[in-house]
Amino acid sequence: MADSKTLALLGCGLMGGSFALAARQAGLIDQVTGYSVPQQHAEHFYEQGLIHKVATNAADAVRDADVVLLAAPVAAIPGLLSDIATALPAHALIMDVGSTKRSIQSAAQQALGDHYPRFVPTHPIAGKEKAGSSEPFATLYQNRTVVLCPDELTDAQALQQAQQLWQAIGAHPRLMGAAAHDRGLAAVSHLPHLIAFAYMDALLNQPDCDELLALGGPGFRDFSRIAGCEASIWRDILPDNRDQLIPLLNAVRQSLDQLEKVINQDDTNHLEAILSRASQARIQWK
Amino acid sequence: MADSKTLALLGCGLMGGSFALAARQAGLIDQVTGYSVPQQHAEHFYEQGLIHKVATNAADAVRDADVVLLAAPVAAIPGLLSDIATALPAHALIMDVGSTKRSIQSAAQQALGDHYPRFVPTHPIAGKEKAGSSEPFATLYQNRTVVLCPDELTDAQALQQAQQLWQAIGAHPRLMGAAAHDRGLAAVSHLPHLIAFAYMDALLNQPDCDELLALGGPGFRDFSRIAGCEASIWRDILPDNRDQLIPLLNAVRQSLDQLEKVINQDDTNHLEAILSRASQARIQWK
Repeated sequence: MADSKTLALLGCGLMGGSFALAARQAGLIDQVTGYSVPQQHAEHFYEQGLIHKVATNAADAVRDADVVLLAAPVAAIPGLLSDIATALPAHALIMDVGSTKRSIQSAAQQALGDHYPRFVPTHPIAGKEKAGSSEPFATLYQNRTVVLCPDELTDAQALQQAQQLWQAIGAHPRLMGAAAHDRGLAAVSHLPHLIAFAYMDALLNQPDCDELLALGGPGFRDFSRIAGCEASIWRDILPDNRDQLIPLLNAVRQSLDQLEKVINQDDTNHLEAILSRASQARIQWK
Repeated sequence: MADSKTLALLGCGLMGGSFALAARQAGLIDQVTGYSVPQQHAEHFYEQGLIHKVATNAADAVRDADVVLLAAPVAAIPGLLSDIATALPAHALIMDVGSTKRSIQSAAQQALGDHYPRFVPTHPIAGKEKAGSSEPFATLYQNRTVVLCPDELTDAQALQQAQQLWQAIGAHPRLMGAAAHDRGLAAVSHLPHLIAFAYMDALLNQPDCDELLALGGPGFRDFSRIAGCEASIWRDILPDNRDQLIPLLNAVRQSLDQLEKVINQDDTNHLEAILSRASQARIQWK
């Protein structure tokens, strides 16, 4: 990483800010240029000392960059890729941190031309620990899996550089095709978010919602935490991955139908068998 | 509580054991007799020094009790109430810690006769913090809401004694009718458990389940934690409260249908509006 000293951060939120903080602490980056829509996010980062410069457009942000990190909402990334394509230095490593990978990989292939081999689609599986809080912190990626999705065109050196970068800030890189990523994340992230949002929505539709919520304990707290995530992020992710998401949602619907049936039939043995299999699998997870 | 020195613990698990520990630490109880099915749970508590005696039947366990705590699975409580009815001392305070209250209150009214006014249906809203772990600990109830469900027959002194007992171990008593309790808990506990179990069941039905689970991050961890709860507990709770549970499940189904519709229509504004309302409500919770 001797030549990777300047980071262009396109999008100034929790994910990008935490990457910049961690990469600077690890000595991998010494200059950070930020760009965001709205611009006050980048200005806020500048005032906090998180970045060194605020760029007024995406192309200007990347002109001197050794590493470009696209850390904007998923739906904004194709536009950003088009905006930076002609301004990218030939040696720059380009990564994103979006929660879906096929659509971004495809947009990059269309937008980046000769730079495409140095684009490594990336998804660090990390996020807020508390509903609502979004201040960047340097340890966000420590001990977290980061999925890298190279394809047959990806430059081997760019991929290696990306792996080393994430390893240096404590994350565990894992290589995977974009399609496998999108199915996996639909199952363990997008679907739980969708269900948690729907659950909160259903409670809010109850006339006695306030009385119900007042009784929530630790189970409610943990189960619903991800319903406190940002709507402006998830409004993009859910439609972008719907071909993977909806079949898995239908599988949950089937399981709910089955559980309702055995509950209504007072079929205690069958009910316990289903709950027991689920419980054992969850206890054995990691 | 000058005369409340002996506790009969019917059921020797996390809830009962933690109550005994906390009550002894607070100096409210100095003798504990335990009874459980299977008996080895009580024997395990005895070996750990958590209880002083193991009773071989429920009636023997309560003969000298000042306080009786029914801390067995919900479906076992009606039988225990019948078993102890003729052995109860006239002054004993009787409580349970079951997650549903109407069915237990009704069973108590049928079983306890003259003792019924000293029965206070109780539900401390606390539980395991980690999937799978179930060792009792003295602080389980600290700062937790404990719902007490007296009715018009409940003895005022017994109710006051119950409130003082829970307050002394750090819990916050809250009085509520059994029906309001059962609706509230259906919404914030039983329904999340049902959905979390169904979610794990749906993942387990996928042929690539292991690959999917390997990608789970903090969102998956928290959302699915309660799916690691004990099947033998939840096999009783869910059917017992189904008249409250299923209509709320249907409300979640409707919210999921609505979300699927706007996702499929790429109706980003509508989608963001639904997610945003859910997110704001979750952030503002407590």
